[in-house]
Amino acid sequence: MRVEIWSDIACPWCYVGKARFERALASFPHRDSVEVVHRSFELDPDRAKGDTTPVITMLTRKYGMSEAQAEAAEDGVGAQAGAEGLEYRTRGRDHGNTFDMHRLLHFAKAEGRQDELIGLLYRANFAEEESVFDSDDRLVALAAEAGLDADAARAVLADPTAYADDVRADEREAAELGANGVPFFVLDRTYGVSGAQPAEVFEQALTQAWGNRSPLTVLSADGADACGPDGCAVPGA
Amino acid sequence: MRVEIWSDIACPWCYVGKARFERALASFPHRDSVEVVHRSFELDPDRAKGDTTPVITMLTRKYGMSEAQAEAAEDGVGAQAGAEGLEYRTRGRDHGNTFDMHRLLHFAKAEGRQDELIGLLYRANFAEEESVFDSDDRLVALAAEAGLDADAARAVLADPTAYADDVRADEREAAELGANGVPFFVLDRTYGVSGAQPAEVFEQALTQAWGNRSPLTVLSADGADACGPDGCAVPGA
Repeated sequence: MRVEIWSDIACPWCYVGKARFERALASFPHRDSVEVVHRSFELDPDRAKGDTTPVITMLTRKYGMSEAQAEAAEDGVGAQAGAEGLEYRTRGRDHGNTFDMHRLLHFAKAEGRQDELIGLLYRANFAEEESVFDSDDRLVALAAEAGLDADAARAVLADPTAYADDVRADEREAAELGANGVPFFVLDRTYGVSGAQPAEVFEQALTQAWGNRSPLTVLSADGADACGPDGCAVPGA
Repeated sequence: MRVEIWSDIACPWCYVGKARFERALASFPHRDSVEVVHRSFELDPDRAKGDTTPVITMLTRKYGMSEAQAEAAEDGVGAQAGAEGLEYRTRGRDHGNTFDMHRLLHFAKAEGRQDELIGLLYRANFAEEESVFDSDDRLVALAAEAGLDADAARAVLADPTAYADDVRADEREAAELGANGVPFFVLDRTYGVSGAQPAEVFEQALTQAWGNRSPLTVLSADGADACGPDGCAVPGA
């Protein structure tokens, strides 16, 4: 079974939802048969690279909150993150454009290091002081920590077309699948789970998707050359 | 869309079928949205490591053929491979245990180099003189050619438990999906295509699977915290 998770590094509920999903997965009996793939979704695709704002400021502008209200909101998210055992800095975080991080995640996917990198990006954005925005050096260091070649990661960041199509393709697919928010979890392209649901909901979804795996429709079983336990189709045999 | 291909390096129809599938994929309009994953299937899992036999000898024993008949059979496969533009040595190839190659392919998958390695293993087994069986040096050289770290590949080969569970899991899944021979192609876990079918059959299967992608069943869309284009669920907002 395959679970695809659309998310954005700038999305606190993606950070929390990933932890809840992983808790559910850890107790799922068929967890060794579950592959997880991370897909790109930008919360703020129109925000220019370099247009980085403190999260608290962004919240006051976006929701017309007072600064105290925005801080209380961040405290609320932080409490839910804390309940999942996640560190969450409720003050001093930045919000900005995440396209480069998504490009880097696709490079990491090609190198078999996506899971490592997304975990480090979340940790860096939500739990560490240094901003992940507008610093190739910071992203290169995280890429290297994820096991990627630092020079190759720097080259990806320096070329704005590198893996850009992969990011756009993920975002197009999200729209086709009906996802208009993240995190969005897709199980075997059959079941969808939207939002940072409780772990119990993910447990139920995994169980239901596993139980309802449908038999294949075999489009062409007859006649073609194949090999099996009894040997291969042999011309002239 | 995802296509999983169960195959064995020792399976000539897998070699031919992969080329036919790739020809179909190259002309498929949505090819950029198709991911291909290779899965393990051993044709001869009970054959001990080191029990390597010339293919011609294996054919005479397995099918009670004369040597001339076995050579004619290999010529027949070679002709079909040639029609796909593949090199195929009809004399002097070996048959043996492929478990280590499958373990190495899973290591390559973890490193994002599976496609490169499987292509090189097929070429080595079917088109080159030096045997791929019973030689860690040969496999390490191919792994390095595929972009893998040679020392890491050697360590995988030296540890018979490394990636062994992944190979077994693939084989268990093949059985669950009803595959009793290879190549076996599975499209989005919904459609199956068995054998080295003509490219036209793969074209039809890709088209049909693409057209019949079903809408997701959303198991839980309500209420959970999420972020979207209009912002995130904000505690206290």
